[in-house]
Amino acid sequence: MSEYWNSRVCSITPYIPGEQPRDKTLIKLNTNENPYPPSPAVFEALQKIDINRLRLYPDPECTDLRNAIASIYGVRREEVFAGNGSDEILAFAFGAFFETPPCFQSGSVKGAENNKTAHTVMFPDITYSFYPVYAALWSLPYREIPLSANWHIKKRDYFEPSGGVIIANPNAPTGIAMQPEDILEIAAAQKHHNAVVIVDEAYSAFADASIVPFLSGGGHNNILSVHTFSKSYSLAGLRAGYAIGSANLIAALERIRDSFNSYTVDMLAQTAARAAVLDRDYFSMTCEKVIATRERISSRLNILGFEVLRSSANFIFIKHPLLSGADFFMRLRENGVLTRRFNKPRIQDFLRVTIGTDNDMDIFLELCSRSLNK
Amino acid sequence: MSEYWNSRVCSITPYIPGEQPRDKTLIKLNTNENPYPPSPAVFEALQKIDINRLRLYPDPECTDLRNAIASIYGVRREEVFAGNGSDEILAFAFGAFFETPPCFQSGSVKGAENNKTAHTVMFPDITYSFYPVYAALWSLPYREIPLSANWHIKKRDYFEPSGGVIIANPNAPTGIAMQPEDILEIAAAQKHHNAVVIVDEAYSAFADASIVPFLSGGGHNNILSVHTFSKSYSLAGLRAGYAIGSANLIAALERIRDSFNSYTVDMLAQTAARAAVLDRDYFSMTCEKVIATRERISSRLNILGFEVLRSSANFIFIKHPLLSGADFFMRLRENGVLTRRFNKPRIQDFLRVTIGTDNDMDIFLELCSRSLNK
Repeated sequence: MSEYWNSRVCSITPYIPGEQPRDKTLIKLNTNENPYPPSPAVFEALQKIDINRLRLYPDPECTDLRNAIASIYGVRREEVFAGNGSDEILAFAFGAFFETPPCFQSGSVKGAENNKTAHTVMFPDITYSFYPVYAALWSLPYREIPLSANWHIKKRDYFEPSGGVIIANPNAPTGIAMQPEDILEIAAAQKHHNAVVIVDEAYSAFADASIVPFLSGGGHNNILSVHTFSKSYSLAGLRAGYAIGSANLIAALERIRDSFNSYTVDMLAQTAARAAVLDRDYFSMTCEKVIATRERISSRLNILGFEVLRSSANFIFIKHPLLSGADFFMRLRENGVLTRRFNKPRIQDFLRVTIGTDNDMDIFLELCSRSLNK
Repeated sequence: MSEYWNSRVCSITPYIPGEQPRDKTLIKLNTNENPYPPSPAVFEALQKIDINRLRLYPDPECTDLRNAIASIYGVRREEVFAGNGSDEILAFAFGAFFETPPCFQSGSVKGAENNKTAHTVMFPDITYSFYPVYAALWSLPYREIPLSANWHIKKRDYFEPSGGVIIANPNAPTGIAMQPEDILEIAAAQKHHNAVVIVDEAYSAFADASIVPFLSGGGHNNILSVHTFSKSYSLAGLRAGYAIGSANLIAALERIRDSFNSYTVDMLAQTAARAAVLDRDYFSMTCEKVIATRERISSRLNILGFEVLRSSANFIFIKHPLLSGADFFMRLRENGVLTRRFNKPRIQDFLRVTIGTDNDMDIFLELCSRSLNK
């Protein structure tokens, strides 16, 4: 702490991203990266770029990238926002759609967690741990709604008056997906309160549950669907994400961006992401491979006695009655496999394990077996 | 406007970046890009990148890039922050160091422009037009301090109690630099109020006035110096910037970043920016070429009767007694030369003209001559 930090800096508890080890020999199953390389079309597109043009600013509108995204979903470019990863888009969305009540100060957010007001933002108690961080950044009061005993999001909890809702679908770190129809019901209820429902679809490519096909026609103009290139497109190193929603919601995101940093997606990222979007065959092939591995490993872990939540993502959330989460994490790590553990009530004995290549996962399985037989 | 926009979105007036025309035949002297390509070291570094590694997140700490920047300034890595362009860093800095007073609401910023309080942020009335936008984004009250009659920043105006100061040095769009010693005096005065002084040094490579050499030793731990790769390094398309300051100030920026987007600088940008930093010879050579052209063109414009403010940047700010700013801008544009005009009191008859290649500038000069003889 310092006399130069403002109350916001003093009061926030920043998000802690998964470790990015400099030791390249570890099998990295901790940050839900894709085990397969980006599409060959990405390599070709990057090769063709005239590096001399880097002296010029990139297209602030990301026109070509947004056109490509619009074309695959059958929406208009005005219904697409492109940003520096989905985290940036989520930060903008919290800043654009959720209201800071009068005289609500940075630093008092935590005390207001269970405060019910018209402005209170709602999200599950077990979900992407960046959501409470965004809320603190923008001084938003929020309520964390408990998941059900079987780890599901109960739609009826999200019908009551709120200042907005954010739901990850599939949810993280559980991997469990809810039906898009249930989200539409939440959005219809929230529409009465002029509240926006953000659907964080970072993992939707590994599910069969995206909300986007329901958005056309304009009936659900309070839903924003947020996506990333980091998982299904194997481009975590590139920093690109996008959102789909009504032109009105997209315009609000643009207003926040243009009050923050006019050019957040660089020229190389715009070009590479566009190439990745347009290679539908490669995208489907790698997603299907990840899904097939996930299903195979889930079955094998079940046989070993693990509880494996029903995942629709590129990771699994697992625990074993004979292993504490902390011990299991350390045993894997000592043997060169990095996973992610969240030291939180209810889930401290679970590990979140990214789906790697079949080879990586066989090594992981072998270690799971050995951990049980020790 | 929409029922889904919050009061922040409704009240902000976003920054409008200079036009990025799709028509590539225009001579682009409107956004202060460098007319020379990036260093050959950038090409080589990008060629060597293993594109397969884009599937992994980039180093969130930007370790190698920060080490390179630290090495050229003789500071420690902990005193360097790397971000997605200097605009992002400025947005973080406004969010980290300047205080939103209790009950000060989004939307009421404009009414408070001339409000003197301990929390009021101060900056010149004629400066980078993003500063009031950042203030509105974070709901900060601010005061715009008039430049002197000869367009200088008067240091004594910035000695009085404030919530912080931001000064562009050289200033934009005037191009006029102030002495680092004057900024040190401002910082010493503001230190009594625990207030931070941000020095936006986007153009400092074209001046001889950087504050950075004065920062080591820790005596000036309330100064943050902000830099960009977009101008002097010819990498506007890449989105990279950095800041130098005490480890305490850098830690505050990291806390805001990690509450916003953990990875804002992508792997390609980290690699390319590092290569650019380390090629000191190329950097000096291109900066010197721009300076030489600036001096030559300034003299020629003086001979034609233009008022040319004494620039220490890679642009000039000019007007002619016989030309209105609006007409002059349009005449240049009709002839394929794009410049920038700010439709604001005192400066509406000036144009800001980026220094291009000697060839570009000769075409520009010829058009200036013709505009006068029409």
